[in-house]
Amino acid sequence: MPKEQSKCAVIGASGYAGEELVRLLLAHPIAELVAVTSRQSAGKRLDQVFPRFGHHNKGDLLFGDADAKKITKNANFVFLALPHGVSADVAKSFLDCDARVIDLSADFRLRSAKVYEEFYGSKHAAPALLKQAVYGLPEQYAKEIAEADLVACPGCYPTSILIPLLPLLREDLIDAKDITITSLSGVSGAGRKVEADYLFAECNESARPYGVPKHRHLSEIEQELSGVTKSLITIQFVPHLIPMNRGIISTMFLRPGPDVDEGEVEAVYKDAYKSEPFVRLLGNERLPDTKNVVGTNFIDISWTLDARTGRLIIMSAIDNLIKGTSGQAIQCLNLMCGYPETAGLL
Amino acid sequence: MPKEQSKCAVIGASGYAGEELVRLLLAHPIAELVAVTSRQSAGKRLDQVFPRFGHHNKGDLLFGDADAKKITKNANFVFLALPHGVSADVAKSFLDCDARVIDLSADFRLRSAKVYEEFYGSKHAAPALLKQAVYGLPEQYAKEIAEADLVACPGCYPTSILIPLLPLLREDLIDAKDITITSLSGVSGAGRKVEADYLFAECNESARPYGVPKHRHLSEIEQELSGVTKSLITIQFVPHLIPMNRGIISTMFLRPGPDVDEGEVEAVYKDAYKSEPFVRLLGNERLPDTKNVVGTNFIDISWTLDARTGRLIIMSAIDNLIKGTSGQAIQCLNLMCGYPETAGLL
Amino acid sequence: MPKEQSKCAVIGASGYAGEELVRLLLAHPIAELVAVTSRQSAGKRLDQVFPRFGHHNKGDLLFGDADAKKITKNANFVFLALPHGVSADVAKSFLDCDARVIDLSADFRLRSAKVYEEFYGSKHAAPALLKQAVYGLPEQYAKEIAEADLVACPGCYPTSILIPLLPLLREDLIDAKDITITSLSGVSGAGRKVEADYLFAECNESARPYGVPKHRHLSEIEQELSGVTKSLITIQFVPHLIPMNRGIISTMFLRPGPDVDEGEVEAVYKDAYKSEPFVRLLGNERLPDTKNVVGTNFIDISWTLDARTGRLIIMSAIDNLIKGTSGQAIQCLNLMCGYPETAGLL
Amino acid sequence: MPKEQSKCAVIGASGYAGEELVRLLLAHPIAELVAVTSRQSAGKRLDQVFPRFGHHNKGDLLFGDADAKKITKNANFVFLALPHGVSADVAKSFLDCDARVIDLSADFRLRSAKVYEEFYGSKHAAPALLKQAVYGLPEQYAKEIAEADLVACPGCYPTSILIPLLPLLREDLIDAKDITITSLSGVSGAGRKVEADYLFAECNESARPYGVPKHRHLSEIEQELSGVTKSLITIQFVPHLIPMNRGIISTMFLRPGPDVDEGEVEAVYKDAYKSEPFVRLLGNERLPDTKNVVGTNFIDISWTLDARTGRLIIMSAIDNLIKGTSGQAIQCLNLMCGYPETAGLL
Repeated sequence: MPKEQSKCAVIGASGYAGEELVRLLLAHPIAELVAVTSRQSAGKRLDQVFPRFGHHNKGDLLFGDADAKKITKNANFVFLALPHGVSADVAKSFLDCDARVIDLSADFRLRSAKVYEEFYGSKHAAPALLKQAVYGLPEQYAKEIAEADLVACPGCYPTSILIPLLPLLREDLIDAKDITITSLSGVSGAGRKVEADYLFAECNESARPYGVPKHRHLSEIEQELSGVTKSLITIQFVPHLIPMNRGIISTMFLRPGPDVDEGEVEAVYKDAYKSEPFVRLLGNERLPDTKNVVGTNFIDISWTLDARTGRLIIMSAIDNLIKGTSGQAIQCLNLMCGYPETAGLL
Repeated sequence: MPKEQSKCAVIGASGYAGEELVRLLLAHPIAELVAVTSRQSAGKRLDQVFPRFGHHNKGDLLFGDADAKKITKNANFVFLALPHGVSADVAKSFLDCDARVIDLSADFRLRSAKVYEEFYGSKHAAPALLKQAVYGLPEQYAKEIAEADLVACPGCYPTSILIPLLPLLREDLIDAKDITITSLSGVSGAGRKVEADYLFAECNESARPYGVPKHRHLSEIEQELSGVTKSLITIQFVPHLIPMNRGIISTMFLRPGPDVDEGEVEAVYKDAYKSEPFVRLLGNERLPDTKNVVGTNFIDISWTLDARTGRLIIMSAIDNLIKGTSGQAIQCLNLMCGYPETAGLL
Repeated sequence: MPKEQSKCAVIGASGYAGEELVRLLLAHPIAELVAVTSRQSAGKRLDQVFPRFGHHNKGDLLFGDADAKKITKNANFVFLALPHGVSADVAKSFLDCDARVIDLSADFRLRSAKVYEEFYGSKHAAPALLKQAVYGLPEQYAKEIAEADLVACPGCYPTSILIPLLPLLREDLIDAKDITITSLSGVSGAGRKVEADYLFAECNESARPYGVPKHRHLSEIEQELSGVTKSLITIQFVPHLIPMNRGIISTMFLRPGPDVDEGEVEAVYKDAYKSEPFVRLLGNERLPDTKNVVGTNFIDISWTLDARTGRLIIMSAIDNLIKGTSGQAIQCLNLMCGYPETAGLL
Repeated sequence: MPKEQSKCAVIGASGYAGEELVRLLLAHPIAELVAVTSRQSAGKRLDQVFPRFGHHNKGDLLFGDADAKKITKNANFVFLALPHGVSADVAKSFLDCDARVIDLSADFRLRSAKVYEEFYGSKHAAPALLKQAVYGLPEQYAKEIAEADLVACPGCYPTSILIPLLPLLREDLIDAKDITITSLSGVSGAGRKVEADYLFAECNESARPYGVPKHRHLSEIEQELSGVTKSLITIQFVPHLIPMNRGIISTMFLRPGPDVDEGEVEAVYKDAYKSEPFVRLLGNERLPDTKNVVGTNFIDISWTLDARTGRLIIMSAIDNLIKGTSGQAIQCLNLMCGYPETAGLL
């Protein structure tokens, strides 16, 4: 496939996901950032909203509004960093202008508008597009992403959970009916929401479970796991908010098949991810630590068979804003354009 | 029982548990702190080692050495805040001098010297004392603690786990064979160990599982749970270190009996803990947050029945250094002396 | 003076200062909390707004509205934890009902309505009350506070600066015209304001000067320093926001008189503060650290004469919400009621 | 100048400065990392010591020992990330093998062995090399660095202070005799020293001045300022340790000449730094914040003339480990090799 010159727009660029997209695009060796939009920052320069980009010659890019016709005069790739519920309509307007769309919201992650309504509490705004959307997990759907016009980037928790679980389920190493997961997330996972719960003095020196028992990300995790097993999977999942800026740890308790040992787990992972540039297999020697992945697009995966309980324990670490959000979106862009998958991400 | 005038010594007072004991004893309305010891701080004044006690008239107490004969001339209660393996011998020397001993190490928590050796990797130094020791969990052993000469205070994780689980097992509400727990702990849980792993820049902006799959605290958790069910219980447990000074969250996934609902869980808890001054039942309305218990001796407990999976999710929060360590030790002292159980703790 | 039974109301109790007042009053051995108000929490129970008070028998106190007539039926002491500009009117309504008022806002700290307008940008709402108000710094105005009906508690920065500077100026040890100060404050100093600047991910791993060059607290600092020297003093002051919940460090650079040495500084401090229960003099051996004062009403003060520059360097540490705000307010209450000055504060 | 192919060794690579050098060299477009040494990590692979480099094909580089002859067979550039006092000897051994040396310790920053002894408390080990060494501040000594065989990289505080002060002194805008500075630093500034003072629970929720009144960095700051004014300058400086991983804020109080205004300050800065790729001038509109520079090699500089006091206030922000240490060292390497000054740093 010939490399496509990509001119990129970021719609909703004033949140944490948008800021990280901007950072990655400014440093990308091939793709070019040509437009940013944000309702609340309209009219401001990029370097006013994000002083950290003050040195860049794109620093004087002005935040405009999300007019698809205007933006697609210059841009052929559009990243949507908008709240769920808002994204669906906007995506449609850009697709109608022949842009390829990479959506970071939850709006196109689910194949079923009904499940969307169950978990997100409102009717889907563009259900006709759902079957066209590709779930943007490169480790699972690289080929489909490459050809997609509408990519739905996974949520941060799902990314940290699906990459470790999919190969184990595919190779039938674990019982699909007995999966228990807890995750820990840094506060940027909540976005730049100006709510009392996310004030510094409410989060610092605080740890708390939340979203119990039916966190929205369950819907896409279960959809993707079920896709592999061809049967409906229900999992147990409790996330926690902890006082750090970035990073997710997911700890998964699994019931392995009767003769499964650590060597077989290793073999399955090595086979599944031997060509994946962002999956690092730590084995059972070393446990993941968010500080080893923060600032990167890597996922670190450890595993241990607990001889006392017979359970297989899988632990993973990612940067929620990079591999969990914007880095993964760039990885999708690279696939869509025929760039090296790691372009701008190492 | 008449109130006993307690003159207290803290052996090994220069760690976090010791410092917290000193703080609580200095503010205690009845008990009196009469001696502190520490090998590394020997000869220094209390206010030199802990500037925060600079205003107190006990600030000029000198750190001495742990000579049982000398110390028991003035002290009739002795707190041991020593590393496991060291405590056993020292406890014996104080018991021989007729002091009542409250041990914060792991040395007397297990009834079996063999299990101790399995989990702590060395022979027990005073196995004959094991059957004399009382496990210092006031919510379970108040009567035994009151009469004990040797109290073994529980570990911090076990405290956060046993108080919620014991009543459920006692009333047979959950399956004892299917218990999965993850905990999150602040860094003070590691003690004042001068190791690279606990440096600020290694812990801040870092989250990590550790002690996988066989953390030492498993031994006492399983012992106490098994004591209630009269059968050997093996549980699944993974702790995580997160960037805050204090606090533990434990999230427990349980398999309830066929007709158990949230109302029954509530009834069992209310019955079990109606007279317990430090157990706060949050029900299923509110989730625990370490910031609501840090600085206190309370444990907050929430529960939710997950209709999708059928599991009962229990979540608890404590201050690892207070309810998890030194506050609980003072609670034991209060019981041993016939003081109000909350003396010096509210 | 006979001890006055104080029934206390906290107006505006849902911010950090209000929460801390509630905490201190609930634990106070003599004073009683009888009412709390808050526009945003009206109708809620105290333990719903502040889960940490869930165990207290006052936990079911309902947040009402700030009706002076109604509240003063039960309360004779009223704490105002309201924004500046709002407090002045409310204070008047309570004074008219014969309550004694302890105001934590800036509204009554300045003796001049004109200076108030200069620094706070709006006309003063009750200028007639200004001459009646006493500046609530017990180390300077204990006698006046005892008899006052309207006490204006100092700001947090001024507390950390005035206690060290006043004796040096009073004894003429330093040049009043050459005072340079920087302060560092934890984020709770900004209050529970729901603004993007105070979100966790904006404050964590961030340090920044702010309020440059004319922070509002300058007005009261200069007023109080000028009161001692009988000449108008202008000082240099830059505060910084740093990623911790609580605590202030103030570092002051002073020009000492020709023969002033550290011994003289020490003598002046010892004389000035020999009976002050909350001033701890560290001398030149030990530097202050916020962690030694957080959770307490103490101020720690260090001093060093820099032989290279000839400057006297004074450094102080306080807990901004206790000695800097609510603890100091309770200290004022104790003086107003004839209680021991330390009641409820040790 | 033709570009020199640089093969780089990092001596003492297991500390924070060394780790950051490794990270920057692994990502450098031209320079190549060929050797790492560390006494404590000898024999280990790079990815074992620093799991974050696990994906890199240099991950299996083995930590060796600092044998100059062996190392210079492959390396022609040597970075020394060693403690002061150790570096001098090692530098000599590498210079004797014709390597060009970039030293990150304090050993070659001072031109006078006597001043070194005064501030560092021990005799200098290689005083003959002092006059050969170039102070590695590219904004001041770019030409000299390009030709040097021995570069002494500045300390982190000096970098944050000298870049703003040098042009003002050079153009005689400020009084060289009245300079007062406070700085705030993240904890990584102390290095990976395993000392109780730097444990997480001792630094988190703590702020403290230290190194009062004669911090070692004063010696090089005063040397460089004096070099510009041709007179001996003594400054006032107090650093503070605050709870974050990285970043320095320096706040400087200066006495401007009679007619100096903000416009003149701006003009001087713009002239001095118009071609400097890493100096960002924020003017008086925006104050620096460490979070805008962390992870980058930039220094952000703000200025304000305080109309009330007549003082000029300059505030700067850097990442202490990048512009303050290892990034600046790479900037020096780029100059020494004739690479673009920003190679590997944007």
